[in-house]
Amino acid sequence: MEKTTEISQLGEFGLIDRLTRDITFHNKSTVRGVGDDAAVVEYPDTEVVVTTDMLLEGVHFDLTYVPLKHLGYKSAVVNFSDVYAMNALPRQLTVGLGVSSRFTVEHLEALYSGIRLACDIYGVDLVGGDTTASRSGLVLALTCIGDAPKGDIVTRDGAKDTDLICVSGDLGSAYMGLQLLEREKVASAGDPEFIPKFDGKEYLVERQLKPEARRDIIEELHKAGIKPTAMMDISDGLSSELLHICKASHTGCRIYEERIPIDYQTAVMAEELNMNLVTAALNGGEDYELLFTVPLHYHEMMEKMKGVKVIGHITKEDLGCRLVTRDGAEMELRAQGFNHMSSPVAETEEKP
Amino acid sequence: MEKTTEISQLGEFGLIDRLTRDITFHNKSTVRGVGDDAAVVEYPDTEVVVTTDMLLEGVHFDLTYVPLKHLGYKSAVVNFSDVYAMNALPRQLTVGLGVSSRFTVEHLEALYSGIRLACDIYGVDLVGGDTTASRSGLVLALTCIGDAPKGDIVTRDGAKDTDLICVSGDLGSAYMGLQLLEREKVASAGDPEFIPKFDGKEYLVERQLKPEARRDIIEELHKAGIKPTAMMDISDGLSSELLHICKASHTGCRIYEERIPIDYQTAVMAEELNMNLVTAALNGGEDYELLFTVPLHYHEMMEKMKGVKVIGHITKEDLGCRLVTRDGAEMELRAQGFNHMSSPVAETEEKP
Repeated sequence: MEKTTEISQLGEFGLIDRLTRDITFHNKSTVRGVGDDAAVVEYPDTEVVVTTDMLLEGVHFDLTYVPLKHLGYKSAVVNFSDVYAMNALPRQLTVGLGVSSRFTVEHLEALYSGIRLACDIYGVDLVGGDTTASRSGLVLALTCIGDAPKGDIVTRDGAKDTDLICVSGDLGSAYMGLQLLEREKVASAGDPEFIPKFDGKEYLVERQLKPEARRDIIEELHKAGIKPTAMMDISDGLSSELLHICKASHTGCRIYEERIPIDYQTAVMAEELNMNLVTAALNGGEDYELLFTVPLHYHEMMEKMKGVKVIGHITKEDLGCRLVTRDGAEMELRAQGFNHMSSPVAETEEKP
Repeated sequence: MEKTTEISQLGEFGLIDRLTRDITFHNKSTVRGVGDDAAVVEYPDTEVVVTTDMLLEGVHFDLTYVPLKHLGYKSAVVNFSDVYAMNALPRQLTVGLGVSSRFTVEHLEALYSGIRLACDIYGVDLVGGDTTASRSGLVLALTCIGDAPKGDIVTRDGAKDTDLICVSGDLGSAYMGLQLLEREKVASAGDPEFIPKFDGKEYLVERQLKPEARRDIIEELHKAGIKPTAMMDISDGLSSELLHICKASHTGCRIYEERIPIDYQTAVMAEELNMNLVTAALNGGEDYELLFTVPLHYHEMMEKMKGVKVIGHITKEDLGCRLVTRDGAEMELRAQGFNHMSSPVAETEEKP
């Protein structure tokens, strides 16, 4: 039988000791980690970026099919992705954790093993956090600090008319992975012996459960001496993010349906579910790919860069933001992304 | 009738725009705030501290008697308190917010007005965050960044034998405020017309609902040219924090019952509730006062410093950590503080 230790046996400080023991640091900017009122870091020569992500059980993840280790890994990686999207490198991570009494110490060790694995792979130091009880399920709030040499940071407001619009990897696969996992959850009807059918769709499941941040693309761009004019990571879907860039940069855009990178498994799954493939790729969300713009003269270099695709170009603002379909028609881009706030979760609470 | 706007009418990005509009910055270290993948800060000459706090409805606060504006103020201030406790000044704040559907835009505006008021009073810049739906109640995760000149940071591990142990303000009042609010909540029996009885106990209510961080003490120490050898803020009760300092510093301590600063209203309330006053002052929690140690030769200066009391001294480790009672007896100090993790909230969830 699996060993289970109640959190109350350790208490808050014992638990923190257990989860954070033997942490080693990767970065010289990390001066002091877990164990005081605050962590201490030092950035004498660089600009520093700070980003926070909150993940709530029942809203952002379903523990029926998300293993805790994967959840930890993903929570950290999506935070790192925000830092890379500023053209910076993630350095320190703090973890705020709210835990209900159904979780044991071993559960949290699994969660932390995922967070720590992500930290090791991406060279980030886990430096602090807060751990507390929760009345309902698991609550995660991660904050990542990163840095970049002065002048290197890329924001979303620098896109210019005629710039090329580029994306890394492929789009819509994480969303299709979610559909697949939800379908198998329904099919299992709560039977613990049920074996889900993921044959030939492993990529989709991996994209949903274990996404990676595109450090490799940031490194490629760096090596090529290219600084994007604007950049974001795609967490809410391509349409939504591209509209953010165009709004902040006061531009329009044209992207081409035929150029949107879509994996074969994504296409098969969309077919099976009778869903519009392009809609899934434009609005699916959780891709954690990079969306960026570069000046037109980098065209040849971008076409050759591995893992990157040029999908269109920036235009003057008055031309609007449009998708050019395969048959040459133009459709207005709209943000129909993963907007947790516009479809509130049903509840039976009283007004405060 | 009060105006109510459903969050879904604005969506996530509209809501963030509403809550963060017209933010002005106080610090030159703040380069870029809300509105990109991450905020940008710059600290070329100082050491940087980072601290995170998580507050969950039903665990850390009860909206029956905590107004949302006060909750926002307190959430920010307790985070600033952690930064001051490092002998640093808070500079930037990020706010992670999980919100269930019973909250309206106006509710969140009230919450943010408290956060922003605290930021204005303490000179901190609200630079980012994450806002999302929650299935159950309100979840807050705040991260504060601060800085101090190199060499100024004070951690908890520097206390030395014969150092004086000092605390600011008084202890136990916030805990008694909580007892009072809970008592009146029970007495109200849900009647919205009920008028709670706070006469002569206003200080206790204020200490619970609107605590302040002790920037003034940090400034006093600075002016006097005194750098504490160890420092923490008292959030879990004096006993618990002092044990942390002694453990980290490999020392023991003696504190004197008669020297523990207790307000008159705290004493009256303890009497009314038939609670042990010293226990409340040692273990009550949420005082957000500063606990620090200074070398013995500062004795005269500390005795004269306004708002600070010398309550005892550090000893060699093998002498243990003890309270000397009024009759000269010695009692072992134990951490019986506000430990959310050791008394898990009752639930009916399944194991993951």
